[in-house]
Amino acid sequence: MTISVAILGATGYTGGELVRLLSRHEAVRIAYVSSERYAGKPLRHAFPHLTSAPDLICQPLGELTEMEKVEVAFCALPHVASMKEVPKLLAHSIRVIDLSADFRLHDAHTYQEWYGAAHLAPELLPEAVYGLPELHRNTIPTARLVANPGCYPTSVLLALAPLLQGRWIDPNRIVIDSKSGVSGAGRAANQDALFTEVAAGFRAYKVVGHRHTPEMEQELSALAGSDVTVRFVPHLLPQSRGILSTCHLQPYAVRSQSEWYETMQSFYQREPFVRVLEPGQWPATSQVQGSNFCHIGITVDPRTGWLTVLSVIDNLVKGAAGQAVQNMNLLFGLAETSGLEQLPLFP
Amino acid sequence: MTISVAILGATGYTGGELVRLLSRHEAVRIAYVSSERYAGKPLRHAFPHLTSAPDLICQPLGELTEMEKVEVAFCALPHVASMKEVPKLLAHSIRVIDLSADFRLHDAHTYQEWYGAAHLAPELLPEAVYGLPELHRNTIPTARLVANPGCYPTSVLLALAPLLQGRWIDPNRIVIDSKSGVSGAGRAANQDALFTEVAAGFRAYKVVGHRHTPEMEQELSALAGSDVTVRFVPHLLPQSRGILSTCHLQPYAVRSQSEWYETMQSFYQREPFVRVLEPGQWPATSQVQGSNFCHIGITVDPRTGWLTVLSVIDNLVKGAAGQAVQNMNLLFGLAETSGLEQLPLFP
Amino acid sequence: MTISVAILGATGYTGGELVRLLSRHEAVRIAYVSSERYAGKPLRHAFPHLTSAPDLICQPLGELTEMEKVEVAFCALPHVASMKEVPKLLAHSIRVIDLSADFRLHDAHTYQEWYGAAHLAPELLPEAVYGLPELHRNTIPTARLVANPGCYPTSVLLALAPLLQGRWIDPNRIVIDSKSGVSGAGRAANQDALFTEVAAGFRAYKVVGHRHTPEMEQELSALAGSDVTVRFVPHLLPQSRGILSTCHLQPYAVRSQSEWYETMQSFYQREPFVRVLEPGQWPATSQVQGSNFCHIGITVDPRTGWLTVLSVIDNLVKGAAGQAVQNMNLLFGLAETSGLEQLPLFP
Amino acid sequence: MTISVAILGATGYTGGELVRLLSRHEAVRIAYVSSERYAGKPLRHAFPHLTSAPDLICQPLGELTEMEKVEVAFCALPHVASMKEVPKLLAHSIRVIDLSADFRLHDAHTYQEWYGAAHLAPELLPEAVYGLPELHRNTIPTARLVANPGCYPTSVLLALAPLLQGRWIDPNRIVIDSKSGVSGAGRAANQDALFTEVAAGFRAYKVVGHRHTPEMEQELSALAGSDVTVRFVPHLLPQSRGILSTCHLQPYAVRSQSEWYETMQSFYQREPFVRVLEPGQWPATSQVQGSNFCHIGITVDPRTGWLTVLSVIDNLVKGAAGQAVQNMNLLFGLAETSGLEQLPLFP
Repeated sequence: MTISVAILGATGYTGGELVRLLSRHEAVRIAYVSSERYAGKPLRHAFPHLTSAPDLICQPLGELTEMEKVEVAFCALPHVASMKEVPKLLAHSIRVIDLSADFRLHDAHTYQEWYGAAHLAPELLPEAVYGLPELHRNTIPTARLVANPGCYPTSVLLALAPLLQGRWIDPNRIVIDSKSGVSGAGRAANQDALFTEVAAGFRAYKVVGHRHTPEMEQELSALAGSDVTVRFVPHLLPQSRGILSTCHLQPYAVRSQSEWYETMQSFYQREPFVRVLEPGQWPATSQVQGSNFCHIGITVDPRTGWLTVLSVIDNLVKGAAGQAVQNMNLLFGLAETSGLEQLPLFP
Repeated sequence: MTISVAILGATGYTGGELVRLLSRHEAVRIAYVSSERYAGKPLRHAFPHLTSAPDLICQPLGELTEMEKVEVAFCALPHVASMKEVPKLLAHSIRVIDLSADFRLHDAHTYQEWYGAAHLAPELLPEAVYGLPELHRNTIPTARLVANPGCYPTSVLLALAPLLQGRWIDPNRIVIDSKSGVSGAGRAANQDALFTEVAAGFRAYKVVGHRHTPEMEQELSALAGSDVTVRFVPHLLPQSRGILSTCHLQPYAVRSQSEWYETMQSFYQREPFVRVLEPGQWPATSQVQGSNFCHIGITVDPRTGWLTVLSVIDNLVKGAAGQAVQNMNLLFGLAETSGLEQLPLFP
Repeated sequence: MTISVAILGATGYTGGELVRLLSRHEAVRIAYVSSERYAGKPLRHAFPHLTSAPDLICQPLGELTEMEKVEVAFCALPHVASMKEVPKLLAHSIRVIDLSADFRLHDAHTYQEWYGAAHLAPELLPEAVYGLPELHRNTIPTARLVANPGCYPTSVLLALAPLLQGRWIDPNRIVIDSKSGVSGAGRAANQDALFTEVAAGFRAYKVVGHRHTPEMEQELSALAGSDVTVRFVPHLLPQSRGILSTCHLQPYAVRSQSEWYETMQSFYQREPFVRVLEPGQWPATSQVQGSNFCHIGITVDPRTGWLTVLSVIDNLVKGAAGQAVQNMNLLFGLAETSGLEQLPLFP
Repeated sequence: MTISVAILGATGYTGGELVRLLSRHEAVRIAYVSSERYAGKPLRHAFPHLTSAPDLICQPLGELTEMEKVEVAFCALPHVASMKEVPKLLAHSIRVIDLSADFRLHDAHTYQEWYGAAHLAPELLPEAVYGLPELHRNTIPTARLVANPGCYPTSVLLALAPLLQGRWIDPNRIVIDSKSGVSGAGRAANQDALFTEVAAGFRAYKVVGHRHTPEMEQELSALAGSDVTVRFVPHLLPQSRGILSTCHLQPYAVRSQSEWYETMQSFYQREPFVRVLEPGQWPATSQVQGSNFCHIGITVDPRTGWLTVLSVIDNLVKGAAGQAVQNMNLLFGLAETSGLEQLPLFP
């Protein structure tokens, strides 16, 4: 089987990762890559590290007719831009894995409230499936439209799912202190992401109101069976890749370190991409670099009663392109790990 | 006036900072620097960046007799090593600013519990003054022995003092998520601090039980007038200098953003080294690099009710050597800012 | 004495360094700072690290009348923009230290050839003094217009001056392999200077034809007393500050390591800002960070006959703002080191 | 076919890379990994990023009997240690790919001169094949012992081979200015490789006498058909991976930019891992990160006559583990790219 795929927005960092992964996926042929800035030029002009990938010429977005034979499109456009394209793709019977935020929230009003724009395709929201395979593996395979999760929500949902589903923690005292590498800011020229600004300038940003918050709360509430409100503060790390989320939690019960570990471990023991670290070990962003893995550590502080869960992912892989490929594998009945077997790169 | 000073442990990063600052302090003469590893050699062999500082030859620790004319000693030795030397110095009528943890805790049992060693000079604990000038400016000037605060506690105490003293927050629901540059790990060869391990490997460490915890709690309890317990999780940043502490707090009252700002601003308005940033601005470690400043931001999340205070310092300056010089200025009746006027270095 | 100064282009990295240094210069009052982007706003909005500098409000460039009482202007504008302003400043009897390239080359045709623009004030070129104090200390004090050297040329001229003046090396076989920190690229948003592009992406740039080449050759030729041609290849380092120039040279004579060292050392022994490292020691960019120092090492490879000189400077200080202050000190008869006594920051 | 392999010295950075690559090589089974420090422990304790690799328990070196069924051993031990083990391996009929320097030089006296130790197995030197496939593809397949090239020599030989073999450049005026990431210094605790020392401290090291020099000269001389002497100066970059070598050359003839490009391009056009960049494009270390590729750029400076070749590799892959796998593929008649198809990781 060879699946013919399109990548819309191929010259951002997420687009580059999709090309990197899909070029080496044995069941995939990349039929189409779009880029306004590099239209008509080889993709390797945008990404010299892809010089040895198959030759691809960037197309401007308008030329959708060329995509008729494509079976699935990865939409790596900014939000709003994405919901303009997705209905056209679906109308051509092309399944869509959308990496923007446009179809992650079930509720169009919540979308408008947090993103400051009216939703342009609210009729598609009911059928969009939130593409976190560890939580929605059963509904993804038959979806026409998969909303690929945000990078921060991926790290947080994997950290908290076992605890909320098991009713182990207070759902209204969750503090999430996340730290992300700079690639999350994208490839567009941007003073705040200059080397000189970032390298010695660790800082928090969007201390109140980061747009990934409602996405986390929607999925956490579904897990908890009740409304969950989280306090979420993101920070910008001086490294290119990686998210570490430190989740400060108040448990309902006093349990031992090994009991907490077992709760996490049993939840994820059959997952191909989630690893719960043994007690005494802690995740580091370097443990998952370039890979689709998520590493999780859990510990309880007997002195204060607080429970801490730490999780790491590569924001461009499990937090974006890799998870999208994982979703594609589910859509087409492939092994979920196809094209994602690479081990992390360290150092 | 020229104060004759000694620096014990001059070839670690804190020692190097003491030399950098004191070499340019107009009221100071560095009379003695100790180092076992570089004994007999010029200090610039250890620190080529100090090639243009006054010529100093490192001495081994034993030769204390040479220090007879010294008025104050900065003790930048590791803990335990420090409490072996401090009594000798005091016996020579040398005032001591100790940068180790050995005299910060008032209670010898707490010291033993957290540091795993019996205290060797418990008789000195009652007279040791905790050298955070913003809190103890009145008692420092007459001290024989100043316990210079830890780097994390400095960042946390300055962030929380106005709120605890004013009884604005719940003292038993304080979550502190701190991030420190690598210089905090010292200059000794250490696999965990290699460039290759750290540069893409952001991680938490000592997730439970970091030794700076009791120091924070001691001072916070004094401010609150009741026992304070904090949940403290430190992380290791891929940058050389800087600490950012993100304090997640539960306020007792619903107040506006500007009310919270005013509480902080009025507390620190006459402080030479603490700056409360205007609402909408946030601290970054790059804002204080190489300087003795602390920048603080405060915000309330009206949606969740959580209050967040962020503070940044340079861990080697306000978190160590700079604060020690500030304490020396107080000990000798100098302007508190003497030798500390340098503006931060950016980028 | 208080010198009233203006800084044109205060919100670039070089402008920020001028403010940092001049704010703490005891003979200087900053009377005027210009910025188009931050016009009407406090400078600390552009540079939060300068929150504790004197309050300064940015002015748009046009309002030159306010500058009437200014004695010297530091012009930190881009090239071409600079030569539009400098004649106006001189017409107001304001002495000028120009940090752009516009007045460094004596020959207007060479300027046009390398910078691709006709010179707008060629009549000023004969009187402009090339402001490298180590070479032109005698002519700077009486200048109306000082052309502050480029960062790469500063590092290269200090490395080669003793050897070319002494006729020790072949002037037409000079290979200069330089590496610069990212701050040299400025603060404007620029994809090539993003953290993500630079952090793991060491590379050469402008492999042929970098514009600092004719400036080096002009000054080297003057030193050699004959035309000098250099092969110059710059590289972009993943660090914020610092230039290291590796100069590969062919000596005319076979001499010992200590003879070469003596040649360098005797040339610079009275210089306040140049240090020749003892044989066996080598410069690192960290040795001069934040300071006006230049560290130089020299070695001969007896096996191949090649001579290697390595020099490091902080590109924003000795390579720009610090050297400009040094020139100002000369213009006003101050000690050459005034305001530049800070020791380097390490780590 | 499944090849059973051993990795000696599996817990250094090169060993970790061998495990990363060989774990995903479809024709390989890792039968044995050695480590003194982690003897008896799972390899993932040394390398948490390999948590999802096959479970492997580290063995101490002595237990060679367990290796009887191994077909090929990758020896990633330090020099000297390596030449103690290699004869034993060969005596067990195990083919060896040695990643140390011990078998790269054909001449035992040259080895002793540069490495300061007598060679312990000089009888093996005549049969050891220098494992740079691009130059020795014909002799590698039948070798018992492959000496895997050094990282710097790999980058330099690939840059210069077409020019020396074609007699295009003066073989005695070659200047090589190389820059390497920190992983080249290994994983042992080492003050010089601390984050704090390296991050802002770009520097040259071993300015005279780096041990990779004779290896380059041996192979370059063979290519040139005459003795070649190079001036080689290495530098330490603040990034984890990557080597960029800037080769400054004097050509014998005046040729156009496109002629020089054609010379390089035609030499490498059928190579799977070498890419000559089109004129106007330049290599960056980020273009090859994590991959076995080498990117090369060439340009001539018409003004000075100097020719510049720039090459980049990942020092741990094409400069070590990846090239070793490439050699293994040749030894066993596999496709040369087996297990090395991964595209580079960027950013």
